Amino acid sequence: METKLTRLHPPQLPRGFIAAGGSCGVKKDGGPDLALLYSESEAAIAAAFTTNRVAAAPVRLSREVAASGRCRAVIANSGCANAATGEKGMEDARRMAEKTAAALDLDPALVAVASTGRIGRYLPIDRIERGIDELASVIREGGNEFAPAAIMTTDTRPKEVACDFEAEGRPARIWGIAKGAGMLYPKMRVAAPPRATMFCFLLTDLAADPGFLRSALAAALEQSFNRITVDADTSTNDTVILLANGRSGAKAGPGSAGATAFRAALDRTSRELAWMIVADGEGAGKFVAIEVTGAASDDDARRAAAAVANSPLFKCALYGENPNWGRLLAALGYSGAELEEGKIAVWAGELEVVRGGLLVEVAPGRAEEELRREKISLRVDLGLGEGRDVYYTCDFTPEYVEINKE
Amino acid sequence: METKLTRLHPPQLPRGFIAAGGSCGVKKDGGPDLALLYSESEAAIAAAFTTNRVAAAPVRLSREVAASGRCRAVIANSGCANAATGEKGMEDARRMAEKTAAALDLDPALVAVASTGRIGRYLPIDRIERGIDELASVIREGGNEFAPAAIMTTDTRPKEVACDFEAEGRPARIWGIAKGAGMLYPKMRVAAPPRATMFCFLLTDLAADPGFLRSALAAALEQSFNRITVDADTSTNDTVILLANGRSGAKAGPGSAGATAFRAALDRTSRELAWMIVADGEGAGKFVAIEVTGAASDDDARRAAAAVANSPLFKCALYGENPNWGRLLAALGYSGAELEEGKIAVWAGELEVVRGGLLVEVAPGRAEEELRREKISLRVDLGLGEGRDVYYTCDFTPEYVEINKE
Repeated sequence: METKLTRLHPPQLPRGFIAAGGSCGVKKDGGPDLALLYSESEAAIAAAFTTNRVAAAPVRLSREVAASGRCRAVIANSGCANAATGEKGMEDARRMAEKTAAALDLDPALVAVASTGRIGRYLPIDRIERGIDELASVIREGGNEFAPAAIMTTDTRPKEVACDFEAEGRPARIWGIAKGAGMLYPKMRVAAPPRATMFCFLLTDLAADPGFLRSALAAALEQSFNRITVDADTSTNDTVILLANGRSGAKAGPGSAGATAFRAALDRTSRELAWMIVADGEGAGKFVAIEVTGAASDDDARRAAAAVANSPLFKCALYGENPNWGRLLAALGYSGAELEEGKIAVWAGELEVVRGGLLVEVAPGRAEEELRREKISLRVDLGLGEGRDVYYTCDFTPEYVEINKE
Repeated sequence: METKLTRLHPPQLPRGFIAAGGSCGVKKDGGPDLALLYSESEAAIAAAFTTNRVAAAPVRLSREVAASGRCRAVIANSGCANAATGEKGMEDARRMAEKTAAALDLDPALVAVASTGRIGRYLPIDRIERGIDELASVIREGGNEFAPAAIMTTDTRPKEVACDFEAEGRPARIWGIAKGAGMLYPKMRVAAPPRATMFCFLLTDLAADPGFLRSALAAALEQSFNRITVDADTSTNDTVILLANGRSGAKAGPGSAGATAFRAALDRTSRELAWMIVADGEGAGKFVAIEVTGAASDDDARRAAAAVANSPLFKCALYGENPNWGRLLAALGYSGAELEEGKIAVWAGELEVVRGGLLVEVAPGRAEEELRREKISLRVDLGLGEGRDVYYTCDFTPEYVEINKE
């Protein structure tokens, strides 16, 4: 079935949602560090959180909100992760929710909380509470445009995407913001855990129940945030939240025509945001898509693509624009995927560089040309079956190390 | 039982072994690139090889030699891995063994082969054959001292260790050389596979049968090469070979007094070589031991220590001498080990830096002082059980990226 999907430039919020961002002094440089997303009426919520067993306090709190299926607001800060902070951390997360609820006259149980930044430090909770009061007044005046910037840490640019779609003849919209940069290798499960310091907040004015939203979000993650990696390092704070407030009048549920349109819009929005995260990975100069086809199973394809996407050596070669396909073959070899070396083929763009497990002689400089592109497309065919998957990653640069020595 | 163990400075070969190294033109810079180890009489062999499914041709050939339990010589080159080279690669590996056998009048089935260097290129086999002839003549004249240097790739220094020990009243010796640097995360199995571009060749004049040697080698690996990581990237060529020619007259077998002494000497020699590999990891400035105690099981302790040792973010912090214990906690959290956040304690040297899952306030500069040491000792206690393990790693530096962009 065809679905109409229009990406909005510039992105705009769905009906009944207001967003605001500002600075409250968590970040020492005075940059924006507090974002508030608000729904004028009760919204259904689906969410996914880190599988890291050292889960941050806000993650533990927001899991409860997600379990209730209902939400009115999300309050998020950058600059401090409120992770490895024990009981005081939980108390601080609760205070963020309670302050937001009080300032906007909401039930605190309907406020989700997210934090990102350094692990092991306590939030400057007094400053955050003052900031929440200020943002609530901005929300009452209709919001501002600083929410995307306020969730950034080492990101170099805000990430915001919106799409219009039609669900059963009615127009609806989905809008999302995200942040990433480092400690980024999401492996999320919905209504339970993901992995990586990444945030994505998605708002739609569609009407849908939490169960349907969860299944749509789970599917969206498996072609977006669960297929990206910057450094194979998994965060304590990963959070994806999807709110649906129904204000468009459009509905979607399992098997409905609206469901197809909504899923397409959700997939597109989450994938675009995931790609933005990779392209803005810490120190990244290149965006690399690694597609594996012909695997014995989809799981094997995923394992193979993930191993290449996480190989420090291969990613250093990408940085050097050095066509070292041997490192790619080595990563396939330790990925755990079923392999027959003599059946492996690899293409860089349209250029075949490995055939039958052996390097193909190409014209001098031709492979380097493929690696000089800002967006590099690699395809690996294992020649065994029908399994396929794609991972997205960036190159590995000295800047990554310099950024993270701090 | 007490065992007498004396490390030799400088290292010397055991009785009945001769070694030589030289340059044959595999490396473009003319550096030493071919090593030959020779036993004057038949030796028992135990070996471990990469688990990478893209196993190099020499690995496949040497597995057969190891399976026979008997060996007379090892021929090893650096500068080209002879991996991802298909049938021609197998033919080249066989030619290396056959040429060595012909030059020294041996059965080709008793010659093991090892190669390390760039993946996907064919060996310059004519040059290697000429080099083998030259080395064979050096061997006939009693050998030279260049074998340790001839197996180096990005290593900055040769790695050689020897220990004297007594087995049932008779003096015996073990000598080993190793190489490492990058693509280094060994996970080896004996008589079957390991992981990482590392070589270790161990020679002893003890008498022992291949079955006993395999069990001793398997144990030695689990406290040496299988507990080190430079970059979590796993090679196609890892090879550890242990030869025992019996020329000392000392014997060891399962349960014998000599067995204890030999195992102690083998453990010590392999551990010293493993530590040398880590200290000389690509771009490495620091040697870091990560001990995990109090885990629910030894397997959990290993998983936890390995996750910290492989975390790019934590290793960047070590490079920056930045006491970012939050990153260490995050790595524990995604390691898969059973955890209770509130029970975790961490020490840097004697300094407690995490207690009850929370960062401990320490005097300004005190934690940085621990990280300024060239050898850093970290201990993590999970507070759950009796499981323990140790991993050794190095810091992650911009030099690593620069070395590997080539």
